[in-house]
Amino acid sequence: MEVKNYLYGYDKLGIIQDTKMFAVSIDSLLLPNFITINKNIKKILDIGCGNAPIPLILSTKTKAKIIGVEIQEKVYELACKSVKINNLEDRIKIINADINIISKELETDSFDIITCNPPFFKVNKESNFNSSDYKTFARHEVALNLEQICKIAKKLLKNNGIIGLVHRPERLIDIIDYMRKNNLEPKKIQFIYPKKGKESNILLIEGRKNGKPGIKILDPIYLNMDDGKYTEQVLNLLK
Amino acid sequence: MEVKNYLYGYDKLGIIQDTKMFAVSIDSLLLPNFITINKNIKKILDIGCGNAPIPLILSTKTKAKIIGVEIQEKVYELACKSVKINNLEDRIKIINADINIISKELETDSFDIITCNPPFFKVNKESNFNSSDYKTFARHEVALNLEQICKIAKKLLKNNGIIGLVHRPERLIDIIDYMRKNNLEPKKIQFIYPKKGKESNILLIEGRKNGKPGIKILDPIYLNMDDGKYTEQVLNLLK
Repeated sequence: MEVKNYLYGYDKLGIIQDTKMFAVSIDSLLLPNFITINKNIKKILDIGCGNAPIPLILSTKTKAKIIGVEIQEKVYELACKSVKINNLEDRIKIINADINIISKELETDSFDIITCNPPFFKVNKESNFNSSDYKTFARHEVALNLEQICKIAKKLLKNNGIIGLVHRPERLIDIIDYMRKNNLEPKKIQFIYPKKGKESNILLIEGRKNGKPGIKILDPIYLNMDDGKYTEQVLNLLK
Repeated sequence: MEVKNYLYGYDKLGIIQDTKMFAVSIDSLLLPNFITINKNIKKILDIGCGNAPIPLILSTKTKAKIIGVEIQEKVYELACKSVKINNLEDRIKIINADINIISKELETDSFDIITCNPPFFKVNKESNFNSSDYKTFARHEVALNLEQICKIAKKLLKNNGIIGLVHRPERLIDIIDYMRKNNLEPKKIQFIYPKKGKESNILLIEGRKNGKPGIKILDPIYLNMDDGKYTEQVLNLLK
């Protein structure tokens, strides 16, 4: 069933969700708040945009043109509806395509920012999933993996353009490897912790095409208090 | 002037310092508390041991034999005195040598753990320092750099043996690069923050020779409270 919700912390941004699919996660709220945005940004690409939470939030922070690419047709349709109910058709364009294919048609060296909340899980022989499931595409590296994302970013980003990813900390070393191999120098990382005293469970990372070495590790974000409610830190961040 | 101090948090561990050289830093206290130690550990190497704070603290956590290597003769002499006043000559051996040379004489694939609090700063044409200064050797990559440390660890560690480094977060990407190129898989990282709301200023990292990919980012450590005193978290850690 399709329902209209509001993005957490953005009471003017509606989003269309399908209760049979997946809900917007905290990952998609954190990434657009982490990315470095300035007034000169003109073109943004969000890879695997789902029902478009990242493009929607970015539209509150920049006047840039935003392209979202989504491989699954039904999810793409939700994204289009989400853009429409917010009257953002002139600033956000959603494309129903496989980014590995459509990226060949997009202009090289043209994007200021590429964002991606990619599938987190490696696929191997032991992977156990239903490949026709909407969640599978969003969670497993079936249609898109880290190496492909970094290669695409290398090709499409302007010099010094930004790639921003939200991922799982256990993949940190792989992410850094693929970024560096594609001349995307990691410049800024923020680790998110479920609560105090626990290991990090979310990683935000920003790199720059042909950037100089040298990285900053920002102050940690704690998601929840002991009673399970969002911390004031998160609530302030999403305001 | 040589003075006897006690290692912070270890009121039974004396250490000989020279007021003209450098004092034991928090880095050397944090690293031995971070490293994974179990009962099977038999041989530990501390590269660039200074006046031996890391070997001394490790001796409270394991019965393993510990070798400390220090290139500077005067600093080596302080280390020997520190070992002696704690009656640890049977467990800690200090060698006065350049690790790049002496490592060729140490048995390959023989160490369970290699620790290092290395020089932090890259050396380049613009580097401005007095090369005869004790601090220069400890702080700048004059006699020892990251690549050399990782190569030595690859050679001297047992299979699945541990390398533990304390470093500056801005070098994270280089560290990971050199570790992976030498089959030292990063497995555990902890970031230290000077206080809440600030970027991390100290990095603790542990890797395993021929380890499987997959890393944990431990809960952050905050060093100081707003009034500049150590946090309870640090005080408990060093108890």
